[in-house]
Amino acid sequence: MTLMEDDRDSQAHGRQGGMSLVIEGGTAVTMAQGQGPIPGARIVVSDGRIVDIGKIGETQLPPDGRFEMIDAADAIVLPGLINAHTHAAMTLFRGLADDLPLKQWLFEKIFPAEAAVLNPETVYWGALLGCLEMIASGTTCFVDGYFFQGQTVQAVHTAGLRGLMAQGVIDFPAPGVPDPQDNLRSAREFIEKWGRFSDLITPGIFCHSPLTCSGRTLRDAWKISKEHDLPLQIHLSETVEEVRETITRYGERPVHYLDRLGLLDSSLIAVHCVHLDIEEIERLAETGVKIVHVPESNMKLGSGVAPVAAMMRAGIAMGLGTDGCASNNDLDLFCEMETAAKTAKVFDRDPLSLDAGTALGLATTGGAAVIGLEREIGTLEKGKRADMIIVDSAAPHLCPMYDPVSALVYSANGSDVRDVIVNGRILMRKRQFTTIDAEEVMGKVREIGKRIEGLRN
Amino acid sequence: MTLMEDDRDSQAHGRQGGMSLVIEGGTAVTMAQGQGPIPGARIVVSDGRIVDIGKIGETQLPPDGRFEMIDAADAIVLPGLINAHTHAAMTLFRGLADDLPLKQWLFEKIFPAEAAVLNPETVYWGALLGCLEMIASGTTCFVDGYFFQGQTVQAVHTAGLRGLMAQGVIDFPAPGVPDPQDNLRSAREFIEKWGRFSDLITPGIFCHSPLTCSGRTLRDAWKISKEHDLPLQIHLSETVEEVRETITRYGERPVHYLDRLGLLDSSLIAVHCVHLDIEEIERLAETGVKIVHVPESNMKLGSGVAPVAAMMRAGIAMGLGTDGCASNNDLDLFCEMETAAKTAKVFDRDPLSLDAGTALGLATTGGAAVIGLEREIGTLEKGKRADMIIVDSAAPHLCPMYDPVSALVYSANGSDVRDVIVNGRILMRKRQFTTIDAEEVMGKVREIGKRIEGLRN
Repeated sequence: MTLMEDDRDSQAHGRQGGMSLVIEGGTAVTMAQGQGPIPGARIVVSDGRIVDIGKIGETQLPPDGRFEMIDAADAIVLPGLINAHTHAAMTLFRGLADDLPLKQWLFEKIFPAEAAVLNPETVYWGALLGCLEMIASGTTCFVDGYFFQGQTVQAVHTAGLRGLMAQGVIDFPAPGVPDPQDNLRSAREFIEKWGRFSDLITPGIFCHSPLTCSGRTLRDAWKISKEHDLPLQIHLSETVEEVRETITRYGERPVHYLDRLGLLDSSLIAVHCVHLDIEEIERLAETGVKIVHVPESNMKLGSGVAPVAAMMRAGIAMGLGTDGCASNNDLDLFCEMETAAKTAKVFDRDPLSLDAGTALGLATTGGAAVIGLEREIGTLEKGKRADMIIVDSAAPHLCPMYDPVSALVYSANGSDVRDVIVNGRILMRKRQFTTIDAEEVMGKVREIGKRIEGLRN
Repeated sequence: MTLMEDDRDSQAHGRQGGMSLVIEGGTAVTMAQGQGPIPGARIVVSDGRIVDIGKIGETQLPPDGRFEMIDAADAIVLPGLINAHTHAAMTLFRGLADDLPLKQWLFEKIFPAEAAVLNPETVYWGALLGCLEMIASGTTCFVDGYFFQGQTVQAVHTAGLRGLMAQGVIDFPAPGVPDPQDNLRSAREFIEKWGRFSDLITPGIFCHSPLTCSGRTLRDAWKISKEHDLPLQIHLSETVEEVRETITRYGERPVHYLDRLGLLDSSLIAVHCVHLDIEEIERLAETGVKIVHVPESNMKLGSGVAPVAAMMRAGIAMGLGTDGCASNNDLDLFCEMETAAKTAKVFDRDPLSLDAGTALGLATTGGAAVIGLEREIGTLEKGKRADMIIVDSAAPHLCPMYDPVSALVYSANGSDVRDVIVNGRILMRKRQFTTIDAEEVMGKVREIGKRIEGLRN
């Protein structure tokens, strides 16, 4: 396995030989507070940041006259989507085991496959395929938790994406950490080794769940995260069974249990949160915990529908995630936004429960807030990092277009994304990848897939 | 408006200057009873029918040696999808009015827009855009109900699609039928005028609902359908309010009310069926009524989730539909299959409730059964009509592929469809349309859209 590390500096700072970028002519959906779509927009990017945005006549081209122009006529320009929860390397297990209950799926299918096949090389290629798929469907930043996470960091760096990459911690023998006694030492080493590898990548810890990690492990993971001023991720209240088991084992519901351990604060990112009572929602809101909604995975495993509208009303900062490919089975945030809106409406029996703008907010400003990057990404505004995507609006399923936000959420899918820019660097242009050799990556993963199929037979 | 009618005969019979078609090298997902995927398949098509299908070595090429070859290596070949309920021309209203309750959406937004803008020309272009979008996303046959339906018949004929096209009947002044007293006369004329227009198109009647049509209208529509041996469509039990109102007005739940009118038999196609009790499900099963599940529309309007698994267990023949673009907002059956599976799982709290194969069955064999064409379409089998689609499996989100059915339902979307064949005629090849000028159609619809926007402002 060879990793491209030579262009690290230029990538981290988003320079392209000093060239600025001008995106012109499209409708900009900026997601900035109170701002509607800007038709005929121009966005000027320099040194990885947006230096000007507005109507063409009201913006300035770079004064040195040196820039690359992207024509966005007949297109929508919007902030790059933020996938607030996934396990990128699990592309390896896409469609390996469907239509099963979570516990059977996890313990009989996924954990054994992971134990048999995961190693630094397979994780690298699986994660790179995840990056490829995310770029292809308009994700520019993602939050990941998995094993051999240094490999995922390298894949993300190769891809040129932004993200929070967390080392998985579980109190069982795990890929790369055969002795659970070593799991926190390994997580600390991960943070220290990879923390300064790329300006685009933040390291972190991901505790698998309150039932698969002991109270001591959870507290220690929290302490290490605090020492390094990093967020801590955890799967929380995904299934009714998990809530019951937590009550049986610890005498209280999962949120109260984590509260007693002292984990609830604004650096905790809780994922799933399907089965919460009103008191738990209030406590999560009070303590500033961030929540990631992963509706498709929760539906596919039959776990339930999270009370998104209620959590948002309580003032909780929320993002949207696809979860891993083993339980979705794709990384397309456009589909996830649509599902989030439609599922909330039907679950709440209220078509106003989660509208298109709110769904797009979950995948942009919401995701940015979850990882504490709301001042850097999530909207198209002067001074922010140039993370943006361009959606081709010439397809039959996007015609006519009365409202670009409705079109993005209810009609578009990831395949409509034409161009992807992260930190001012073009990662996909006219659906051609600039940082990843797609054929090589898919070829490697198909080979790994054959090994996985061999295990199954 | 010019309609291409010159090539009617050759289209209807699927001839292409006498040339046969051979699709070779892909994995065939035939949907034939008990048959798994066939890797390295060859499908031979002649005179609009499948004349041979199997592994390459076990099939015969056309004896005259004259055929067009489609290379399907790295692709999946499957039966064309059947959209069992839509209103194609409502593409005109895509995204015009989202995030509203059904009654307000229908009476304050959609009905007024329809009254202001629908005429033979706008319906033609709207329906042709619907056909374009369906071809682009792998639908080869659809069931439609709308106004100015002769125009939709002509659009479907231009597109080369197959379908059941029904004239809308409602006891209000309607587009093209200003006096409701004329609605059944108009429907009868539609059937008689368009019934023999194309071998690919069956005419019919679509009664809007038990509350918007009187008992007399429903009975008369049923009689006309019987006289012509045609199916009758109706929206049924879509919302809780509709059920309540039916009880208030007629003293019984909708299914029992239709039963009393004598409408329940195997020629009735009931759409939505969200709010049914067990007795109603049993009665629909007993009488052989066909049901169309339209999950995304039901979700978007907050109407509810139909008890699909329970209806299937009761033995009801079921298809899958997108509904119109005003309440979905697209015509992509791939997304609809995924939503059907995931929604059933979470609604029933059972990940086994509706698996990938069942979802694909709803959109193929199920749809064929709903319209009584199960001996002609819905599977890839010798002797059946050559309605089939080829899905490119080279995209990152379809890699790796352990199971093509899982990939089709949980990972693919309509944009992955590469080629579309109806009755042996190629309607899309390498994503280029052969029967429709896409730019012209989208241009016309955008012009109509501007008029609609003008009304709104």
